[in-house]
Amino acid sequence: MTAEQAEQALHRKIPLSHAMQMKVKELSLQRAVLTAPLDPNINHVGTGFGGSLYAMGALSCYALFLEISRQAGVDSDALVIQRGEIEYLAPVEGDFESVVNAPSAGEMRLFHESLKKRGRGRLNLTAEIQVEGEVKARFSGDYVSRI
Amino acid sequence: MTAEQAEQALHRKIPLSHAMQMKVKELSLQRAVLTAPLDPNINHVGTGFGGSLYAMGALSCYALFLEISRQAGVDSDALVIQRGEIEYLAPVEGDFESVVNAPSAGEMRLFHESLKKRGRGRLNLTAEIQVEGEVKARFSGDYVSRI
Repeated sequence: MTAEQAEQALHRKIPLSHAMQMKVKELSLQRAVLTAPLDPNINHVGTGFGGSLYAMGALSCYALFLEISRQAGVDSDALVIQRGEIEYLAPVEGDFESVVNAPSAGEMRLFHESLKKRGRGRLNLTAEIQVEGEVKARFSGDYVSRI
Repeated sequence: MTAEQAEQALHRKIPLSHAMQMKVKELSLQRAVLTAPLDPNINHVGTGFGGSLYAMGALSCYALFLEISRQAGVDSDALVIQRGEIEYLAPVEGDFESVVNAPSAGEMRLFHESLKKRGRGRLNLTAEIQVEGEVKARFSGDYVSRI
């Protein structure tokens, strides 16, 4: 799936991503990068709303997990997030990105083995919320696929 | 602050809360209850988007924390969330509420003592995301006030 196709699908299926003006800048099996402007995601002190930063982290990890799961033959409707957390390190004072890289080869192998053996695989994915390359928050989520 | 005033302030200062069609149903020093319809907060499988559920948890705790902090003489601009997490227990298949109750008397006492002594107080607040009284997710956040 191209970045543009993923963006259209997310906007259509998860309308809040459209309200947030989220864009998919980059998407592959190795990495997802989503962007959003500050304005629709601003809070009471003029910086990024914590709920928007979490949602961007969750959407970026979901986009990458969807690519990984599709390659393994899992239908996109069979993906869920079980748990998520975010640590806020510094205020987000401008437009921001959420960047997630694929887990290590070892974690990926365990995920694929579990999918084959048990029809169910889990990955912990972590995303960084960045402004001009500086990390402002760290998101982590547990995602599960079922065949 | 009445529930209606809080709702208007949140919609104005945090526009995503307006996009989510969040409403403040109840607000006091003891408790905050926020509601949202499923439609603007739906995901790819027709249930509540995890990012929306987190944002509702965070907003409900923020609303209660604002009331508690105001009573202690802290300006609303001096509040931050440092960390948040959410556990998804079951799909949200309809309009939902986020319900948060004030912490124990002991925790409140420590918060007020710390504000007086150090000019800084922290509270951990937890909210339940409910559909017709059934708990579907649990949010927890660390909030800090500075005088």
